[in-house]
Amino acid sequence: MPKSREIHLIQRPSGAPKPEDFALIERDVVDAADGEVLVQNLYMSVDPAMRPRLTAGQSLGEAMLGGALGRILQSKHDGFAVGDLVNNRLGFREFFTSDGKGLSKLSPDPDLPLTVHMHALGGTGFTAYGGLLHIGQLKDGEQVFVSTAGGAVGSVAAQIAKLKGCYVVGSTGADDKAAWLRDEVGLDAVINYKTQSIRDALEEATPKGLDVYFDNVGGDHLEAALRRMNTLGRIPVCGFISGYNSGHSSVSNLSNIIYSRVMLRGFVAPDFMHLYEDFQRDMAGWLKDGRVKYQETIINGIAAAPQALIGLMAGQNSGKMLVKLSE
Amino acid sequence: MPKSREIHLIQRPSGAPKPEDFALIERDVVDAADGEVLVQNLYMSVDPAMRPRLTAGQSLGEAMLGGALGRILQSKHDGFAVGDLVNNRLGFREFFTSDGKGLSKLSPDPDLPLTVHMHALGGTGFTAYGGLLHIGQLKDGEQVFVSTAGGAVGSVAAQIAKLKGCYVVGSTGADDKAAWLRDEVGLDAVINYKTQSIRDALEEATPKGLDVYFDNVGGDHLEAALRRMNTLGRIPVCGFISGYNSGHSSVSNLSNIIYSRVMLRGFVAPDFMHLYEDFQRDMAGWLKDGRVKYQETIINGIAAAPQALIGLMAGQNSGKMLVKLSE
Repeated sequence: MPKSREIHLIQRPSGAPKPEDFALIERDVVDAADGEVLVQNLYMSVDPAMRPRLTAGQSLGEAMLGGALGRILQSKHDGFAVGDLVNNRLGFREFFTSDGKGLSKLSPDPDLPLTVHMHALGGTGFTAYGGLLHIGQLKDGEQVFVSTAGGAVGSVAAQIAKLKGCYVVGSTGADDKAAWLRDEVGLDAVINYKTQSIRDALEEATPKGLDVYFDNVGGDHLEAALRRMNTLGRIPVCGFISGYNSGHSSVSNLSNIIYSRVMLRGFVAPDFMHLYEDFQRDMAGWLKDGRVKYQETIINGIAAAPQALIGLMAGQNSGKMLVKLSE
Repeated sequence: MPKSREIHLIQRPSGAPKPEDFALIERDVVDAADGEVLVQNLYMSVDPAMRPRLTAGQSLGEAMLGGALGRILQSKHDGFAVGDLVNNRLGFREFFTSDGKGLSKLSPDPDLPLTVHMHALGGTGFTAYGGLLHIGQLKDGEQVFVSTAGGAVGSVAAQIAKLKGCYVVGSTGADDKAAWLRDEVGLDAVINYKTQSIRDALEEATPKGLDVYFDNVGGDHLEAALRRMNTLGRIPVCGFISGYNSGHSSVSNLSNIIYSRVMLRGFVAPDFMHLYEDFQRDMAGWLKDGRVKYQETIINGIAAAPQALIGLMAGQNSGKMLVKLSE
C-alpha cells in the first residue's frame, strides 16, 4: 500500500511561521469506496491568505487546507473518470478520497501550461480581475497603485490596469521583481518598499493622485495611498499582509476617506462569481497573446510545503508560489 | 451705519480649540449694490466638521465659514425679495452682501419651528438620511450601531434606523443624552463611552453582530464596530471626531473588512442630492407625527460662537448646536 504524506499544523505561530510549527505525517492511501474517488494531487498552491488561518481557523493536528490541482486515480463516482483533473481545497497532502463535494473538473487549455490554471487563469488571477474591475470599478485611463505587484494577485492586477490604459504604479520588496515589473511588464513607476520610503516614493510617483488602490498589504502602504486618493477613489482590499504575522497593522489617517469620499471594500472572489466566464475568456486571450505575463516559483515535494509558506511570507517568491507534489 | 460683527480664526489650534484662537471683528455694513442683496443672518450652525478646517482650509484673519440661515434686508437682485429667508455658507458673521451665488431660498414649513430647517429637516438630517439609506444601503430589520447618537446627525440616523424596524445601538458621552436616547427615542441599547469600555459594551449589546455602523467618530468606536461586523456589512463614514483635535486616530483591525467583506465609504451630502426631495417629504412627515424627535442647544449672540464650537467639540451640546444671531 502506498503512503500519502500530509502537512499538519502542530502549534500556532507566534509572529512569522517557523518550520517547527508544522509536521510531516504519513497515512495509508485507501481505495475509493462506492460513490467516491481517489485523487492524487499534482500541484498545491501557497497563498498569503493562509497565514491568518494559522492563528485561528486551522485545527491543530490535522492536514492543512489550501487550493490544489489533482488527478483522479480511481473512480466509483458517476461524475468523475480516471484521469480527470480536479481543482480542490485539499492541498498539503498527496492523496485523498472524496465523495466529489468540493471538487471541480478542470478542462485545461491545450495552448497554455497546466500551471497557469493555478494562478493567472485560476484563483489569484480571478481575484485580481474581479477585485479591480468589479469591486474597484476601474475605468479606462485612471491612476492606479497596486501593492505587492510582483506577487500572483498583484502582478495580474497591475497588468489588467495597464491593458485598460491606466497609469500604474506598483510596489514590491526586491530589486529583481522591481526590474521585472519595470522592464517586462512595463509599469509606469515601481517602488521597492524595502529600500524606499513608501510614503515619499508614492507621492513622487503619483502627480495626478490615485483613483484606485488595489491593496494587498494594509498598514504603511494603505496610509501612503490614503494620502493620495482622488475624490470618489476606490480601494479594493484584497489582503493585509502587513498585519498577518503581527496580528494587527495600524492605519492612522483613515479619516481621509471622508474628505475625498473614498470607498474601501474588503472582498473575496466568490463575491463576483458571475464574472467567471468573462474572466476565463479575457485572461486566456491575454495570456496567449502575451499581454499578461507571469512568473512562477515552483518548489518540489510535499516535505518542502512549510518552507514554501514561510518563504512566501518573507517575499522569496517571484509570482505564484506552487509546490509540485507529483508528475 | 450699523456694524456687522464676525469671527476670525487668528491662529491654528494645537489640539482642542481655545478662545484665544479666535477674534471678534467689527465691520461696517455696506448697502447692496446693483445685482446684490444684503443679508442679515438669523441663526448659524456649529458642526464637528468645522474642526478640520481650523487646521487646514480656513484662512487666518478672515471671517470663518459655516452654514447659516439669513433674511434679505435689501435687494437689488431679481431673484430675491426683501424678507426672503436664505440658506447660506457665510455663518460666523451678522450681515453680508452677496451677488446671490451660494444662497438658496428657504420656504419654511409653517407647521414646524424654523430652526428644524437647520438640523433635522436641513443639512444634518439629510446627511443622516442619505448616509444611512444610500451610502449604508440600510435594509429593514438590520442590526445597526450609530456613534454620537445624541448629536444632530447621529440622533436622526438612529431614529431613521428605528423607523425601518432595525435593532439600534447608540453611543453617547453623557448620562442625560443616554437617558434621552433610551427613554424618549427608544433605542434598543445605549452606551456611554465615557464611563464604559466601548469594545466590551458594544460586544454585549450586539448579540447578532452589526450590519451597518454609521460612523461619526472613527478610532476606538470604529475598532469596536469592526470586531462586530457581519458579512457584507457597511460602514458609512460621516465623521472622525476622535481624530479632529489630535490630527490622527489609529485603527488597528481594519483587516477585518476582508474576511467579512465589509465596505467603508466616506461621504458628504452632495453625493446624494438626488434624494433631497424624498428626504424633505419623509422627514417633514416624521417630524410632524413625532416619530423623529430632536434636541437643540441654542447659544445667543455672535460673540459666543467660538465658545459654541469649543463646547461642541467637548460634547456640551444636546442635539444640534446653533448660535442665534438675530430675531
